[in-house]
Amino acid sequence: MSKPVCYSTKAFGTSSASAPLGATTIDRRMPAASDIQIQILYCGVCHSDLHFSRNEWGFTQYPAVPGHEIVGRVTAVGSGVTKFKVGDTVGVGCLVDSCRTCPDCRQGLEQFCNGMVMTYGSMDQHLDRPTLGGYAQSIVVTEDFVLRIPANLNLAAVAPLLCAGITTYSPMRHWKVGAGQKVGIVGLGGLGHMGVKFARAFGAHVVLFTTSPGKIDDAKRLGAHEVVVSKDEAQMQTHAGSFDFILDAVSATHDINAYLNLLKHDGNLVLVGAPEKPLPVAAFPLIFRRRSFSGSLIGGLPETQEMLDFCAAHNITSEIEMIRMDQINEAYERMLKSDVKYRFVIDMASLS
Amino acid sequence: MSKPVCYSTKAFGTSSASAPLGATTIDRRMPAASDIQIQILYCGVCHSDLHFSRNEWGFTQYPAVPGHEIVGRVTAVGSGVTKFKVGDTVGVGCLVDSCRTCPDCRQGLEQFCNGMVMTYGSMDQHLDRPTLGGYAQSIVVTEDFVLRIPANLNLAAVAPLLCAGITTYSPMRHWKVGAGQKVGIVGLGGLGHMGVKFARAFGAHVVLFTTSPGKIDDAKRLGAHEVVVSKDEAQMQTHAGSFDFILDAVSATHDINAYLNLLKHDGNLVLVGAPEKPLPVAAFPLIFRRRSFSGSLIGGLPETQEMLDFCAAHNITSEIEMIRMDQINEAYERMLKSDVKYRFVIDMASLS
Repeated sequence: MSKPVCYSTKAFGTSSASAPLGATTIDRRMPAASDIQIQILYCGVCHSDLHFSRNEWGFTQYPAVPGHEIVGRVTAVGSGVTKFKVGDTVGVGCLVDSCRTCPDCRQGLEQFCNGMVMTYGSMDQHLDRPTLGGYAQSIVVTEDFVLRIPANLNLAAVAPLLCAGITTYSPMRHWKVGAGQKVGIVGLGGLGHMGVKFARAFGAHVVLFTTSPGKIDDAKRLGAHEVVVSKDEAQMQTHAGSFDFILDAVSATHDINAYLNLLKHDGNLVLVGAPEKPLPVAAFPLIFRRRSFSGSLIGGLPETQEMLDFCAAHNITSEIEMIRMDQINEAYERMLKSDVKYRFVIDMASLS
Repeated sequence: MSKPVCYSTKAFGTSSASAPLGATTIDRRMPAASDIQIQILYCGVCHSDLHFSRNEWGFTQYPAVPGHEIVGRVTAVGSGVTKFKVGDTVGVGCLVDSCRTCPDCRQGLEQFCNGMVMTYGSMDQHLDRPTLGGYAQSIVVTEDFVLRIPANLNLAAVAPLLCAGITTYSPMRHWKVGAGQKVGIVGLGGLGHMGVKFARAFGAHVVLFTTSPGKIDDAKRLGAHEVVVSKDEAQMQTHAGSFDFILDAVSATHDINAYLNLLKHDGNLVLVGAPEKPLPVAAFPLIFRRRSFSGSLIGGLPETQEMLDFCAAHNITSEIEMIRMDQINEAYERMLKSDVKYRFVIDMASLS
């Protein structure tokens, strides 16, 4: 395949694991027949962006541009595009392509496709270099990986739904969280606060676990029926064996067994944070109640659209703090201290 | 409740964590209205017996008598007994009672009842001392916790079905192992060899994982379609992402992540061995394929009977090595070296 014609767009990225992010200019392909060109209005800031920028997962190639919680406006469409037109408000999440032919893709589970192309850090088959993400003024994506954004929602606050939203929505749908269930959410951060909102919207009795007593009021305001300070062992014990489902949104090392013991038999503890080190799991909490410790990864394209439509129907968005593009390095430092309520979103108009 | 009238029976037990097992005499209650008195013919030797005798789980009270894979003949029935008569061949597994009223009991999931009474080491409400197990000539059990033993099976080889059998049968039923699936069994011991037989009988493609190349022929004879020597990383890699279900029957510390990586998305790795130390579980193998690491504990009474009837229909029993009661201490030492094919069974006629 010959390299397509490209255009330049302003972006914010980094050239090494130790360098701060800074202004740069990158190439995007001109839209092909099935492509959509998007002016990026807002991009959410995911903890993965930080891991990736600093090569903490070991596979980053530089120069790197993070960002996979993208909301924007269509500025051009390819000749074969049928689903979108210029001017539409659209979103792009963690995936920009997949093989389209494997059983997973055919089921709309593109997140499990061996050929999935992530929005940043995957090989870009068009340009023969790693994909570059949403910290930029413009992006070009094949229409099948572009989402419709419902008109009634605050666009900036929609951006985090594209990763934090679907990451918490999908496992609760998969494991059938609903009315009559007691559901725990561990951690009130970017993921956890979305988990609280969805679990509440699904009709469950919602218990938020946090290490910070200062988050109790906020958690209740966001939808939690109860808040448990997880350092309080006596309080933890009163909930032993009582949960149908627990969503664990903590990326730091923490005691998984303490939460496994809170599940009823056949309950699931689902990890959506990604601690770097393996978590010690004791056999007895699993065996004695047929409990499961599971993981979940974003969601496929059909479910991501379903999630956005659910959010429109239930008026759900992320709690955000808007930043300018040039505040990103400071934002990363604040994220490391959990000093954000509850997701940074970059106003891309500030990148000029 | 006043203490019931008792009778004496010969048994084999121990009075401390460090003492070998030896001959003793214990009390059993005389059968009450709903009770069955059983002459024990055979008792299988489970690794739990050894853990318990030596107080390796920390809750053993002495004197202790292990044994929960019991096959025998009914010698007396209480006035209210309706399901059994004198002379019937019967079995008793890991449970001898439960609360009977909780939602778990009403669903036949007595193994999850908070009031479950284990065959040894639980509080015996009748005698106000710990329950004493099947290394004995006789036992008295309420009829609802007694199983019918199909007439066509070798009785000695049935005994291990009461724990090793149901422990492997139940999770494969719960997670719906069947034709068209690729199923792994980790470890060819007392549990693992039953796992191979059941997985094969359920119609799955069965792969046995072992650290011992010497077990390859035996595994195939017992029903495995393939055998993978788990120390061979290249061989392990060829199976990456290909399993629907893996039953892990290894009690020693081992690398769980190596097996999690062999599962397809949505696959389950189910632990039925009970390693003493927590197992380090990496987040990425769980997250990237929505995999689950689960545990399973024996099975309820209805499912245990179903398993025995399934074994009768498919002519399935355990591979056993018969021992005399006075060989039990030597048998424990051999179990610690995995020197048994594949379950010791005590001929209780040798206890005289």
